[in-house]
Amino acid sequence: MPDKLMRMTRADLPRRHRPVMLAIAGDSAAGKTTITAGLVEALGPERSTSVCVDDYHRFDRVERKGLPFTALHPSCNYIEIMEQHLQLLASGKPILKPVYDHDTGKLARPELVEPTEFVIVEGLLPLHTKLARACFDVTVYLNPPEEIRHQWKVNRDVGHRGYTEEQVRAELERREPESRQFIRPQRADADIVVRFAPVSERDDPPDTPLSAELLLRPTIRHPDLTEVFAETNSRTMHLKLIRDEHGRPVDALHVHGYVPPDESRVLQKVIWDKLDTGTALPSSLGQLGDGRRSEPLAITQLLLLYHLIEAAR
Amino acid sequence: MPDKLMRMTRADLPRRHRPVMLAIAGDSAAGKTTITAGLVEALGPERSTSVCVDDYHRFDRVERKGLPFTALHPSCNYIEIMEQHLQLLASGKPILKPVYDHDTGKLARPELVEPTEFVIVEGLLPLHTKLARACFDVTVYLNPPEEIRHQWKVNRDVGHRGYTEEQVRAELERREPESRQFIRPQRADADIVVRFAPVSERDDPPDTPLSAELLLRPTIRHPDLTEVFAETNSRTMHLKLIRDEHGRPVDALHVHGYVPPDESRVLQKVIWDKLDTGTALPSSLGQLGDGRRSEPLAITQLLLLYHLIEAAR
Repeated sequence: MPDKLMRMTRADLPRRHRPVMLAIAGDSAAGKTTITAGLVEALGPERSTSVCVDDYHRFDRVERKGLPFTALHPSCNYIEIMEQHLQLLASGKPILKPVYDHDTGKLARPELVEPTEFVIVEGLLPLHTKLARACFDVTVYLNPPEEIRHQWKVNRDVGHRGYTEEQVRAELERREPESRQFIRPQRADADIVVRFAPVSERDDPPDTPLSAELLLRPTIRHPDLTEVFAETNSRTMHLKLIRDEHGRPVDALHVHGYVPPDESRVLQKVIWDKLDTGTALPSSLGQLGDGRRSEPLAITQLLLLYHLIEAAR
Repeated sequence: MPDKLMRMTRADLPRRHRPVMLAIAGDSAAGKTTITAGLVEALGPERSTSVCVDDYHRFDRVERKGLPFTALHPSCNYIEIMEQHLQLLASGKPILKPVYDHDTGKLARPELVEPTEFVIVEGLLPLHTKLARACFDVTVYLNPPEEIRHQWKVNRDVGHRGYTEEQVRAELERREPESRQFIRPQRADADIVVRFAPVSERDDPPDTPLSAELLLRPTIRHPDLTEVFAETNSRTMHLKLIRDEHGRPVDALHVHGYVPPDESRVLQKVIWDKLDTGTALPSSLGQLGDGRRSEPLAITQLLLLYHLIEAAR
């Protein structure tokens, strides 16, 4: 590299705003879009940029047919370019992002992405490498039970992408080894692991929203919720100190699907007031895709919102 | 930007090979491809990467129709992304380069470019900004007389791109203000300005190859040719100390189209021997597109080759 470039990149480049970077990793149909939508609305679309790293596919759908791996495999993606673009975004710089068209299965004309105050990066492999992880202020892994996720994927791909249920189930099976090898290991590296699931021990009526179990790893500084729960560990929300699957200590926050809105609102207010923004609690949190509201989703999104606003300070 | 990223990008990233970067700037049909082809062959295609920065078009052909500027205008190109990609290449890193398809006029799927030992970047605006210029070890501007360049563009675009001569001439006229405003100013920033032209004072037979006038700016260290020319300033080759159009001192090397191959070979040998590579003078230099050989082109390419090999040491 010429010396003059070394000098310029160090000193002469204009200093720009550095965005707050949030990663939402998870397998196909794990709920990434639903989580992100409410966050973007709460932050304001003009202050938020979302990027899907599944656009970094190296091959189009036709080319993939002849390959011994699925779209989940790192070799099927430009991981090094993804890392590069994440570094650029984290430094406040624009990228020319590739575009994978899910409808046609083709790689299309790339698009300019200029980072705003908050950059939300979601996709299959945003936490796959150490360098990619280093680009984020907050990292999340979505970890629904596999049978729930499979049903979500069937609903979406049959409903909106023109596949038959049989095709979707066959594809899920084909992807399973790579999901286990590459997608699920990212759970261990996330600051927050989110699991939406029915509560197994109870017989809830069929329309009960899913409960949330949030693993809060001490890799980032979470709002102190011990006080709130010191005396009020209720049947519908509780905080428990546990060990994760690697034996490391974490806080597990459970929010049951049938938590009364009043009770949920108390916890939300505690978290929101810690931010001391002087504004009202955002009303966009907790919206499910079908128009219903979920208190566990609202609390999950609020926790992420808390971290985003804190990191921006 | 998270602190951990700052640390990683500074210390933990693997140190890679830094390529030598050459820019060849010039207007449409100025001869960039012809110059580059012989260089790549001499260096070995496996050691050379060429990149055309006209791929950084922001709009496709249809979108450009409604715009008040032509493809030559910086606003019509992702200049900041071009700068970013040049910096990445100069640091030995791969890029995902956009692709503009000249046949269809569309922006297509981007392609991975991994830099090799030598990276040759050609196009309309590679020297437009200070940061872009800082990425290069050697910069060249191709500066044929406008009437020669227009004829080359007519030959190419009518012959290979399906336009009529009238269309090409109209487009050249439409582009003239932006050529003057954005393309030609790059001449002042090039280390070497190359002008292939007929010698105006002589009546050469129509098949005489064009002569070359090379302005060698002291912004890089050229091979010392004063000795060669001290006594042998012949009718067909000479070196003259002059002032350029901005009054700055430069060496002007003239090589006439009808220089005898023997005489040209003496100069080439002097330049080549200075490199002390222990290998024979490459035979690929001086090839014109139509199969003929041009001694002025061979000497021009050899000078660039000299700088590339020197910069790689």
